[in-house]
Amino acid sequence: MTRVITVHRDLSAPARAQAEEFRRTMLQRGTLVVNLLSSPGAGKTSLLAATAAHWGSRRRMAVLVGDIATDRDAQRLAPLVPAVQLTTGGACHLELSLVERGLDALPAGELDFLFIENVGNLVCPSSHDLGEHVRLVVLSTTEGDDKPAKYPKAFRTSQALVINKIDLLPHVPFSIRAATDDARAIQPELCVLPVSALHATGIRAWCDYLDAQHERFLGTHAQTIDSTT
Amino acid sequence: MTRVITVHRDLSAPARAQAEEFRRTMLQRGTLVVNLLSSPGAGKTSLLAATAAHWGSRRRMAVLVGDIATDRDAQRLAPLVPAVQLTTGGACHLELSLVERGLDALPAGELDFLFIENVGNLVCPSSHDLGEHVRLVVLSTTEGDDKPAKYPKAFRTSQALVINKIDLLPHVPFSIRAATDDARAIQPELCVLPVSALHATGIRAWCDYLDAQHERFLGTHAQTIDSTT
Repeated sequence: MTRVITVHRDLSAPARAQAEEFRRTMLQRGTLVVNLLSSPGAGKTSLLAATAAHWGSRRRMAVLVGDIATDRDAQRLAPLVPAVQLTTGGACHLELSLVERGLDALPAGELDFLFIENVGNLVCPSSHDLGEHVRLVVLSTTEGDDKPAKYPKAFRTSQALVINKIDLLPHVPFSIRAATDDARAIQPELCVLPVSALHATGIRAWCDYLDAQHERFLGTHAQTIDSTT
Repeated sequence: MTRVITVHRDLSAPARAQAEEFRRTMLQRGTLVVNLLSSPGAGKTSLLAATAAHWGSRRRMAVLVGDIATDRDAQRLAPLVPAVQLTTGGACHLELSLVERGLDALPAGELDFLFIENVGNLVCPSSHDLGEHVRLVVLSTTEGDDKPAKYPKAFRTSQALVINKIDLLPHVPFSIRAATDDARAIQPELCVLPVSALHATGIRAWCDYLDAQHERFLGTHAQTIDSTT
């Protein structure tokens, strides 16, 4: 037997308003919020480590790292950038309330970029607005080029697709063209960025993309801190 | 404000009873049900294709293939074994009712093994009993050896861990020992089977494991059909 409970209000409206408010607040602070989605092990943490290494002190970035359990990813990132682990204790995605608590736990100070590394999962996180300005999906070449069609929502709701682990292309059956065509059939405006986070290939173009997004949303270049001047 | 609705019965009891009934019925039919969990792209479909190729007509197997969208995996398997695609239309895991409909859609005939390839997701499928006799988690070397601790439930509720893509070990930072230690800290009885589905490495040991499970649950060797006699 199915019981239907009718609720005479839009239950998602408060969540949407909360996300819009967070987006607005972060822009006022000069911070671009970037939400990274992917399968487990696609290389989100490695990509953020490579980003921090590329920028050095020229951009002010911090990372909120989502996982079901353990604080390993925050430990990996901590020597490079301020990072706070968000553990969901079983839930398959992050929620904005947890992001806000993570933000409060970061060291005080202005940020150009706040990266949210979502729980490794190509399904659930795509249905949750974390108040981000840019949503990205990271797909590794080892996962197969058929993933966009099979997990469409993560690709349809993203603005860019980072194809990671291109150093493994000689060893795996993966076509960047096929993955790109598949993904753009779902989201024609998708920007595609092939990288190898482990070998720091394509990281300059990826960082240029991030800078362009910062300029698009904030109307200014990201802060450049040159400690030598 | 949080509203608590108290329901004075165990909502999961009917689901558990349904799963037990399915398990019993399938044993009576002589069929071992195997539920495969993994991240997207870990190689579940390739593993089942290699299994079918190894067995040829010596075992009667069929596959129910779960995905959010597309019937690509069933199309890949169809030349090798009877396969039915189960698309969830967005849901992050399979449910038993969908499995039962898939079973009805398979060609009539006795089966030694019914494989359920779950939706690619290391989180949600681990909480859903599909009436399987054996649950397996497939982890590919490209995902990193830190996944058992980060996604513990999939490993804790499985009887075996298949480590796939071992052909890529020279190119990726992955230690079979570290992954095994991590996984066995969560589930000490876990049987670990390293394979390369793409290169058919370790497939004999994997198939021997399946035969041993068939014997354990059914008390008999799986049916051997030798078309040459």
